[in-house]
Amino acid sequence: VTASQPAGQHTVRRHNRGLVLRTVAADEPVSRARVAARTGLTRGTVSSLVEELLGAGLLAELAAARGATGRPANPLQLNRSGPAGLGVEIGVDTVGACVVDLTGAVRAQWVVASDHRTWPARAGLEAAAELAAEVVGQAGLPIAGVGLAVPGVVAGGVLERAPNLPLWRDVDVHARVAAVLAPVVGDVPVTVGNEADLAALGEHRTHAAGDDFIYVSGGVGVGAGIVLGGRLFHGSGGRAGELGHVVVDPTGPRCTCGGRGCLERAAGMEVLCRAAGVADLDALAAATERGERAADAALRAGGHALGVALAGAVNLLDVPVVVLGGGYPRLGPVLRDAVADELARRVVWRSPVSVRVSAHTASAALVGAATSVVCALMDDVAPDQAAAGC
Amino acid sequence: VTASQPAGQHTVRRHNRGLVLRTVAADEPVSRARVAARTGLTRGTVSSLVEELLGAGLLAELAAARGATGRPANPLQLNRSGPAGLGVEIGVDTVGACVVDLTGAVRAQWVVASDHRTWPARAGLEAAAELAAEVVGQAGLPIAGVGLAVPGVVAGGVLERAPNLPLWRDVDVHARVAAVLAPVVGDVPVTVGNEADLAALGEHRTHAAGDDFIYVSGGVGVGAGIVLGGRLFHGSGGRAGELGHVVVDPTGPRCTCGGRGCLERAAGMEVLCRAAGVADLDALAAATERGERAADAALRAGGHALGVALAGAVNLLDVPVVVLGGGYPRLGPVLRDAVADELARRVVWRSPVSVRVSAHTASAALVGAATSVVCALMDDVAPDQAAAGC
Repeated sequence: VTASQPAGQHTVRRHNRGLVLRTVAADEPVSRARVAARTGLTRGTVSSLVEELLGAGLLAELAAARGATGRPANPLQLNRSGPAGLGVEIGVDTVGACVVDLTGAVRAQWVVASDHRTWPARAGLEAAAELAAEVVGQAGLPIAGVGLAVPGVVAGGVLERAPNLPLWRDVDVHARVAAVLAPVVGDVPVTVGNEADLAALGEHRTHAAGDDFIYVSGGVGVGAGIVLGGRLFHGSGGRAGELGHVVVDPTGPRCTCGGRGCLERAAGMEVLCRAAGVADLDALAAATERGERAADAALRAGGHALGVALAGAVNLLDVPVVVLGGGYPRLGPVLRDAVADELARRVVWRSPVSVRVSAHTASAALVGAATSVVCALMDDVAPDQAAAGC
Repeated sequence: VTASQPAGQHTVRRHNRGLVLRTVAADEPVSRARVAARTGLTRGTVSSLVEELLGAGLLAELAAARGATGRPANPLQLNRSGPAGLGVEIGVDTVGACVVDLTGAVRAQWVVASDHRTWPARAGLEAAAELAAEVVGQAGLPIAGVGLAVPGVVAGGVLERAPNLPLWRDVDVHARVAAVLAPVVGDVPVTVGNEADLAALGEHRTHAAGDDFIYVSGGVGVGAGIVLGGRLFHGSGGRAGELGHVVVDPTGPRCTCGGRGCLERAAGMEVLCRAAGVADLDALAAATERGERAADAALRAGGHALGVALAGAVNLLDVPVVVLGGGYPRLGPVLRDAVADELARRVVWRSPVSVRVSAHTASAALVGAATSVVCALMDDVAPDQAAAGC
């Protein structure tokens, strides 16, 4: 319901159907009577909406509770065999696919190495389609939509800017993915999102960080997904969250974006590895665990830069929680503590900002991409509005 | 309508009543038939909602158009004698009051010097009440609510943080203003907002900057009001927009907030004046107009710092327009051009960010505060949700 359209019976019915679905999800298995009590809707309305939801395969009935008097009312739950979301992720150096069911459970998942910095887009898309066919076959669920995660700025389905994927620049990933996946899943809606946004959505499903947080995805680039009021925040153009290009040192090193002193040049994984004198994230994680001095210093410096950028973001957005994700969770407490120090020093208001480390590892964006499809189903909105999140 | 409440007839009616009101506002004077055509509501529904709106004093009927056949349908418009908003602003060194009618027109306004850095809060409140009585008497309209603008972070009606108003810190401005104004306006809802937020709301009413922009209020402090989709963006805690404490130089000078190198220390008015070797904004504006070299250098440096902070904000929020307000419009093109340079260099996506200078001068926040009350009336929401904006 937006303010420029009249509300009518159809809108109300759809709103209430989504409400019934989410009420069942929050409390399953649950009786129709309890759903009516929780929602404030009449039993008649609930029964009629439940029939629609059973018909759409979104709800399932369990066997009636024993000893019930009168007409048995079978308890309701989300349909584990119902429509599911297919997530696909094109990473900088991986490709993955997974299927998430209506309850948010991952039913099949597969991630393989695939260096998209050097492979052409077509090869990456074929690898993605192959993995997708694999997980869809494994899960055996009807696929209601596809969510695609990419490491860059997406506008109108086109990967407009992906500094770490030069061969993918200006590729219409929406059309290309829809085309390669059509033989696998048929003609279902495809949505494309930034990997940090979708990872934030995956993080939100765990409920660990609440409904308002900034999720930071630490990789070759540094991105952020912003969740406000339990929804992904898109900004006016859908490209919000480019934390990696917030300036932390106006006279600092040149960035792939054309600017200078961006956060990415101070806290991106390759920069951290170089500063620590190691080859990659695995080596950096190991060096940190051994307490090596160079790794320690690199993470401390990177963490302070990250904290400066995040303090600015918190001062602008007023969010109470920061979640460190992507590769950062593997790097131990040094980076996190430096972030927390800067936030404590620089955030304007008194209430402290909580810094958490994501429990998800590499596949947060992939699971988030599949989850975005399920969220749209649970909201009872058109699946191509999936990226609006849940 | 939020997703956790059932929608019913009452919600629908309220939604549609607001829709009718805003449709009249957009197209006045206008017939009931045209309102029905524009909204898609039935004529019967429109007539019944119009009766309610006439009864509430929000709409007025004009005399019937001459030559009409059949039953005359008097054209509708917003009621110029209807409920109005009272705005009050406690500035760092001014106090003001104004009345805005339902059309958004300023019907009475008064601003006087009043240095709240040295006056106790009680004296400032008495001055505000006196001015309010003056403008309310002048306007002669029923006051539906009060919007109060203050230069600081407001939480739950309390001025939690106002670095430039140390004597007002932790003052429950909501309760104090409601108390001093009760003899003037009676027991109407009072809302308290940050001055930059309310100035952004005032800016939005002019439609010059569109529905998505960051408004920067340049004063002793630097604040921002963020408008997204035509609504004030509050963040999760209602304190969003503290642009002045975004870091532009991590090793820079100490800030009143306890941090270092905040934007405010590089682009606040007192800093600009000191750098230019002048006493105040008037002198700085004059020196700039004369093309003095020190003023030029100060504004260039300040503008670059402001541009760095704004580029970060744009990368995080994805907004297409930046509006320079508060005292900045008086400082000519040097500062604006430096801001535009940094944005062009540092914003990640290709679509250019437009930099505008507010046509409002000192009273933007004051008018915005009064406007927030009118916005709530036009949205047909409870007046104490006024700060949600329009």
